Amino acid sequence: MHVLILGAAGMIGRKLTARLVADASLGRRAIERLTLIDIATPQVPARAPFPVAAEACDVAAPGAAEQMLIGKPDVIFHLAAIVSGEAEADFDKGLRSNLDGTRRLLDAIRGEMAGHPPRVVFTSSIAVFGAPFPDAIPDSYHHTPLTSYGTQKAICELLLADYSRRGFLDGIGIRLPTICVRPGKPNKAASGFFSGIIREPLNGEEGLLPVGEGVRHWHASPRSAVGFLIHAATIDTGSLADRRNLTMPGLSVTVAEQIAALRRVAGERVAGRIRREPDPVIARIVEGWPRNFDAERAGKLGFTLLEREFDDIIRFHIDDELGGRVS
Amino acid sequence: MHVLILGAAGMIGRKLTARLVADASLGRRAIERLTLIDIATPQVPARAPFPVAAEACDVAAPGAAEQMLIGKPDVIFHLAAIVSGEAEADFDKGLRSNLDGTRRLLDAIRGEMAGHPPRVVFTSSIAVFGAPFPDAIPDSYHHTPLTSYGTQKAICELLLADYSRRGFLDGIGIRLPTICVRPGKPNKAASGFFSGIIREPLNGEEGLLPVGEGVRHWHASPRSAVGFLIHAATIDTGSLADRRNLTMPGLSVTVAEQIAALRRVAGERVAGRIRREPDPVIARIVEGWPRNFDAERAGKLGFTLLEREFDDIIRFHIDDELGGRVS
Repeated sequence: MHVLILGAAGMIGRKLTARLVADASLGRRAIERLTLIDIATPQVPARAPFPVAAEACDVAAPGAAEQMLIGKPDVIFHLAAIVSGEAEADFDKGLRSNLDGTRRLLDAIRGEMAGHPPRVVFTSSIAVFGAPFPDAIPDSYHHTPLTSYGTQKAICELLLADYSRRGFLDGIGIRLPTICVRPGKPNKAASGFFSGIIREPLNGEEGLLPVGEGVRHWHASPRSAVGFLIHAATIDTGSLADRRNLTMPGLSVTVAEQIAALRRVAGERVAGRIRREPDPVIARIVEGWPRNFDAERAGKLGFTLLEREFDDIIRFHIDDELGGRVS
Repeated sequence: MHVLILGAAGMIGRKLTARLVADASLGRRAIERLTLIDIATPQVPARAPFPVAAEACDVAAPGAAEQMLIGKPDVIFHLAAIVSGEAEADFDKGLRSNLDGTRRLLDAIRGEMAGHPPRVVFTSSIAVFGAPFPDAIPDSYHHTPLTSYGTQKAICELLLADYSRRGFLDGIGIRLPTICVRPGKPNKAASGFFSGIIREPLNGEEGLLPVGEGVRHWHASPRSAVGFLIHAATIDTGSLADRRNLTMPGLSVTVAEQIAALRRVAGERVAGRIRREPDPVIARIVEGWPRNFDAERAGKLGFTLLEREFDDIIRFHIDDELGGRVS
């Protein structure tokens, strides 16, 4: 089979690529070709057991989506997006990339792949929900996003479902939790500290905490996120009926629980590298974010969270990113 | 103030126009100008106490929306849409009119009216919801439309809310119940019989009933619908916070209850003109439709249903459309 990853240069895209290269198959089918696309040319993995093509392409550019489909992919992972902060700061850019780009992709699939609808796995976001919230947000909760990013994701979910209902494609939208621990450098995302307070102390650096320890949020490890994507690509979509979008499982933990887990896994010396530096702007943004979900539907459909407690999330990070060692 | 009605030639548009001409004001402000727009030139009402312009224009045509805004309307009623059946039969036409047309309108407002955001009253639909349903659908229920029409309306709701949140306009989306009794000729809409079994017998004609009498649905009179539009145009939108779209009040009644009401209001002779002609296709379509809502939020915000029971809906029709007489 031919697999296409759109947004392959991002963190999740790179981890998904590595997993597909390691597995050499998706579900029960062998992978025969892999195409990696992003705004900048994604890196081609070494020693892949199948041909890998990498291309720089902007899906929102006219004709680009049609070009991407020439190789008739069987499975398309659509991970490409302008992130939340940027979509909020630059309204036109967010609309163009997150909404118009996805629409162009879906329309190109409809036009170019009629009769052979590919599986389309779309990464949506818990940002489709907006406060005030119930204690645990069910899949049946309405979408009242409080950001343009969340609005654009919610619209893409609706398009994905309708294009699937009409048989133009075979779509599934998965709302990922906040991914923790995100590897790499600190970034300016308002959510960055959830990873930063773990990642930086484990690297021997100071981790800044801009909010109170009572703040609760919804997390999943990169390992789990990749597992969700693989499962979404291989699930029998008949089991979804016409409800093609769903919230993925996660762990609902407070910052205090994150810190306690870090202390248990890496010791007081590491946990002591967290520095409290309250930032009222970030605190206010985070106030509007979801804290907890009831992801019962995803669980019944076989989406499995690999971590049982936040300690596991930290251990996965140490194993996958730090070669098992803590500074 | 200057009021613009987009979709003014439709049934609701005509009734809204008549109401504005009769009132000569909207809320506490006098109407100074009224502009009526539709695909075909709307009729200009006689004896309006203010200038009325009527134009044929397709909001989905490039540049058309900008042209409409030259007169800087203070309030825009956006009622224009391809109906459900047509949007399902012709996917491209529905997308173009119901989604792209609305997007063009919102973008034109953003571009042309910066600093003077108009009130935009958008008629959404209960078709944003899709079965299976709870007994009474709350405002907090998710949007999983089962038609392209419902998908397009749900997307426009999301855009309306985000453009409002950003201050580009001051939007409110109202999900109208099925309007009953629709005046005029029978049409081919799957929902047509809900009005037809009342309207045709009252006209001395046979009314066809294609479904069982146990079918329950959600109705409001044209009078109530116009009242909702007026209230939406004049409400303090601060009370909506960022949740700009809401389900309007209605009556949840079964077909048997409709028929019993017709018998009470117009007698056995009229009710006897209903002919059962089961149509499994229509029965299956209607199976997926909402039956009942909890419109508590709209009630608290002052949206008032004028009818207390289905008998009132029939009486309004007799008064407004039949000069008080039954054949």
